[in-house]
Amino acid sequence: MRYKLASRKEKTENTIITVEDSSVGGKQLAVIAGPCAVEDRDLFIKTAVQLKKLGVQMLRGGAFKPRTSPYAFQGLAEEGLKILAEAKRTTGLPVVTEVMDTRDVELVAGYADVIQIGSRNMQNFVLLKEVGRGNRPVLLKRGLAATIEEWLMAAEYIMAEGNKNIILCERGIRTFETHTRNTLDISAIPAVQHLSHLPVIVDPSHAAGKWGMVAPLAKAAVAAGADGLIIEVHPCPDKALSDGGQSLTMSNFSELMSQLVPVAAAVGRKCNYEGKKLVRQNII
Amino acid sequence: MRYKLASRKEKTENTIITVEDSSVGGKQLAVIAGPCAVEDRDLFIKTAVQLKKLGVQMLRGGAFKPRTSPYAFQGLAEEGLKILAEAKRTTGLPVVTEVMDTRDVELVAGYADVIQIGSRNMQNFVLLKEVGRGNRPVLLKRGLAATIEEWLMAAEYIMAEGNKNIILCERGIRTFETHTRNTLDISAIPAVQHLSHLPVIVDPSHAAGKWGMVAPLAKAAVAAGADGLIIEVHPCPDKALSDGGQSLTMSNFSELMSQLVPVAAAVGRKCNYEGKKLVRQNII
Amino acid sequence: MRYKLASRKEKTENTIITVEDSSVGGKQLAVIAGPCAVEDRDLFIKTAVQLKKLGVQMLRGGAFKPRTSPYAFQGLAEEGLKILAEAKRTTGLPVVTEVMDTRDVELVAGYADVIQIGSRNMQNFVLLKEVGRGNRPVLLKRGLAATIEEWLMAAEYIMAEGNKNIILCERGIRTFETHTRNTLDISAIPAVQHLSHLPVIVDPSHAAGKWGMVAPLAKAAVAAGADGLIIEVHPCPDKALSDGGQSLTMSNFSELMSQLVPVAAAVGRKCNYEGKKLVRQNII
Amino acid sequence: MRYKLASRKEKTENTIITVEDSSVGGKQLAVIAGPCAVEDRDLFIKTAVQLKKLGVQMLRGGAFKPRTSPYAFQGLAEEGLKILAEAKRTTGLPVVTEVMDTRDVELVAGYADVIQIGSRNMQNFVLLKEVGRGNRPVLLKRGLAATIEEWLMAAEYIMAEGNKNIILCERGIRTFETHTRNTLDISAIPAVQHLSHLPVIVDPSHAAGKWGMVAPLAKAAVAAGADGLIIEVHPCPDKALSDGGQSLTMSNFSELMSQLVPVAAAVGRKCNYEGKKLVRQNII
Repeated sequence: MRYKLASRKEKTENTIITVEDSSVGGKQLAVIAGPCAVEDRDLFIKTAVQLKKLGVQMLRGGAFKPRTSPYAFQGLAEEGLKILAEAKRTTGLPVVTEVMDTRDVELVAGYADVIQIGSRNMQNFVLLKEVGRGNRPVLLKRGLAATIEEWLMAAEYIMAEGNKNIILCERGIRTFETHTRNTLDISAIPAVQHLSHLPVIVDPSHAAGKWGMVAPLAKAAVAAGADGLIIEVHPCPDKALSDGGQSLTMSNFSELMSQLVPVAAAVGRKCNYEGKKLVRQNII
Repeated sequence: MRYKLASRKEKTENTIITVEDSSVGGKQLAVIAGPCAVEDRDLFIKTAVQLKKLGVQMLRGGAFKPRTSPYAFQGLAEEGLKILAEAKRTTGLPVVTEVMDTRDVELVAGYADVIQIGSRNMQNFVLLKEVGRGNRPVLLKRGLAATIEEWLMAAEYIMAEGNKNIILCERGIRTFETHTRNTLDISAIPAVQHLSHLPVIVDPSHAAGKWGMVAPLAKAAVAAGADGLIIEVHPCPDKALSDGGQSLTMSNFSELMSQLVPVAAAVGRKCNYEGKKLVRQNII
Repeated sequence: MRYKLASRKEKTENTIITVEDSSVGGKQLAVIAGPCAVEDRDLFIKTAVQLKKLGVQMLRGGAFKPRTSPYAFQGLAEEGLKILAEAKRTTGLPVVTEVMDTRDVELVAGYADVIQIGSRNMQNFVLLKEVGRGNRPVLLKRGLAATIEEWLMAAEYIMAEGNKNIILCERGIRTFETHTRNTLDISAIPAVQHLSHLPVIVDPSHAAGKWGMVAPLAKAAVAAGADGLIIEVHPCPDKALSDGGQSLTMSNFSELMSQLVPVAAAVGRKCNYEGKKLVRQNII
Repeated sequence: MRYKLASRKEKTENTIITVEDSSVGGKQLAVIAGPCAVEDRDLFIKTAVQLKKLGVQMLRGGAFKPRTSPYAFQGLAEEGLKILAEAKRTTGLPVVTEVMDTRDVELVAGYADVIQIGSRNMQNFVLLKEVGRGNRPVLLKRGLAATIEEWLMAAEYIMAEGNKNIILCERGIRTFETHTRNTLDISAIPAVQHLSHLPVIVDPSHAAGKWGMVAPLAKAAVAAGADGLIIEVHPCPDKALSDGGQSLTMSNFSELMSQLVPVAAAVGRKCNYEGKKLVRQNII
């Protein structure tokens, strides 16, 4: 048995997911940015305002964090969701955040514009079904060791329940290589676009696990045809409670955005960026 | 941050998990057997009775099935749990079954003697915490692409909530090799025994994905020091609703049990088996 | 023990490998193209002439072919080398070809401008030493399952013998994913550029194993900062004696070259291409 | 194109390779032991004599060593071969040693009873052909990332040249797991025995990369049906010039041999061992 609803055979034209004033899958490159976790209200709001000025389409930030160790910071839960909602009110940007528990889907859907299913839950089938029963767009990350076929089958689980608003997200797979945290499977972009009508974005931050690699991987993703990017940006990566080592500073992110403009143009995409002026004016 | 409660440094002597009259981690080899899914009451009860006669310590059978495709058989849910309970009453054997949803933990714990966390949910941290709050022994399967470190960290999630009754289960990891469904990581047995005090068993059926390989892998696991085995046995593999290709027939399973006796003895373990007589008498 | 001569610490500025009038590692993107194997004199010469017109920097073509099966076409050996030499005389383009046997190094070096060490021979240490004793530039493909560290150590083997002219080539690694023949490790580009001063190019044809993926992967490689590309082009892929499924037709390759121009420009590289006019004139 | 001569379809009965008074593939378990590299004449001869007393069937020791770093000990070359020959004269045991260069095949064949093709050269097709032209038995190690299909195809390369005396050797494959150096693919044993008539042995030392894991893996291999073992034993592992961390001391090896006897018996194999007496007498 294979995927049907997610298949390009079932629907030949590209699916475009509309989220408030933004969209994923069209000509405009969808750049989603923010810190790994929502850690502190003031810091998050300030970060969100700056990201908005740089041309970001959506904000990201985790309130429920899947951490390898039970002793690591687990996220602010509902308090984090409230901060996300405030950041949305302040900036007008839609927010993306992860849900981990079937019991929290309704709660998260009450705050988030896009619900993220993390890598580790890509085959948490009961969770997939639960988000499938709502209508909030779902950002479905590829599992660490999931084949492209299994990933599309996970999308099918959501679609089979009625929710067709799915954004696929490649974030690196597990291989023997240890220099990078994961191996970004850049081929997954054309593969998914061939097999499915769903939009696909790339998370270069988790793939590399090293901030110095985020820019080249982000440019590669856009050149390969990705519909968007989700990037970790933290005003002070050294103090981040999770994944600091892979977060860009605001200034590095601004630099990356300026580099993405011509790459996007080279493959027929649009990427708005007004950051250079802001950086010159010391606003960012 | 690393695991503490699961570590051999924290507790030097081996942990033995007692389940009714059986135990895992002691001198007796714990053999758990049954079909992949509970599909039919009469068939399951009959199978259970035969397995009991062959010397099996516990029964296995899925009521909630994690299937790659949403269109595949998803299990009988509570009806399946009731059949498991009936099989237990009939045979006296404890039962192992999987839980996939935090909302079902209480329900499953009401029927099962051992709660299984499947491969795909090894890093479903909310589910780990939920089973950690109870006291039912947990059979924790290694994730498809989980390192041994991450697997022990998953055990730590459960233990950190209070439940120390954990049976680790190696079931094959994902590699480039396509001849087998997964690659049984036989080294995980001595590795876990070195790093942790928790018992570790092996699932040769899911590792191989081919019934013809189950016997050599089961013998290898016992020789390497595994505390037990969990094996798929189906009275009629061709008609199984899931994983028929890797299930042993009753007669092949009986043959395997007879072969395990001397291997277990060779490494100082005990494995009771009275099947030969039964087979001769055409009872099985 | 680690690599020294290959390390960025040993030599901070980028190494540029000069091959006749071309170079790899500078501002100009080095595009190497040709069929997988040299199969037929007339066809190869004609292909070479067309590739020259499209702006290619070097020709590729195998005379000694490492084939998984002993019953597959093994290459034309010295006859193939002679055809390569003729193609060079006709077009003025330098040629790249593989050597597999220490006994053939001198022979191959007599015809080739760049000697290729294939993936399967990346840790054939005696062969590495042998090409290290000459001064012909070496195109060193990454092994199928080689870490970046091991790859640089293989370069070190060559350099330790005296030959410092090495072009690294990422060509996809072996992972669990089966949709592509190999997984192009795009992160290897920034990784190598961080760790080493040696130039690094990408082979999108072998990585994908499917011609339809070559263009997006080639563009991704350039955007990520690769110093060049090596691409399989065959005038008639359906009739190729090896790897036809991943070869571009001349017309698809021309289309790709035209797409590479703006991508290269977006990352500060130069890629000359005059093909559109030629295609319009039906010359190609 | 697939393998033919190596296939079980071509030849249904098991192939038994006879090497002097020993054999691989029959009822007797073939245990091959020795240090990773031949380092010193006196030490090697002494080790050989002790191994003979413990019941070993063949000696191993590398004269040409494939090392990841060009700055690591590369072996004693012909001097090492001479020491091997002397050890053979002293003990009567046949010797196994690796060849890496086509130009050395004749030289090595002049000293060795079994020629080893190492993991990194499994797809060095010219070397395979060269050993295929002789009649010395070949111990063909599986490549680090070779599928079982590719491994049998490598055997086919040798057989297609005329040499049918091949012993396959599983030595661990490369996966994401970092706790062990490689992942011993125990399933490869039944897989190979199903697909081919060639004997298959296991190298638990290179698979684990840790001496503490060698015994459980060796026992697992025998229980799974392996025709033999090749084990690194060094009189003083701390001082070994290569792979000391995975070598057994003589006393640990003796202990392992004593444990193998009942495991071998449990699966219908014979393993002679007279070491206990010797250890008691302080001879070893």
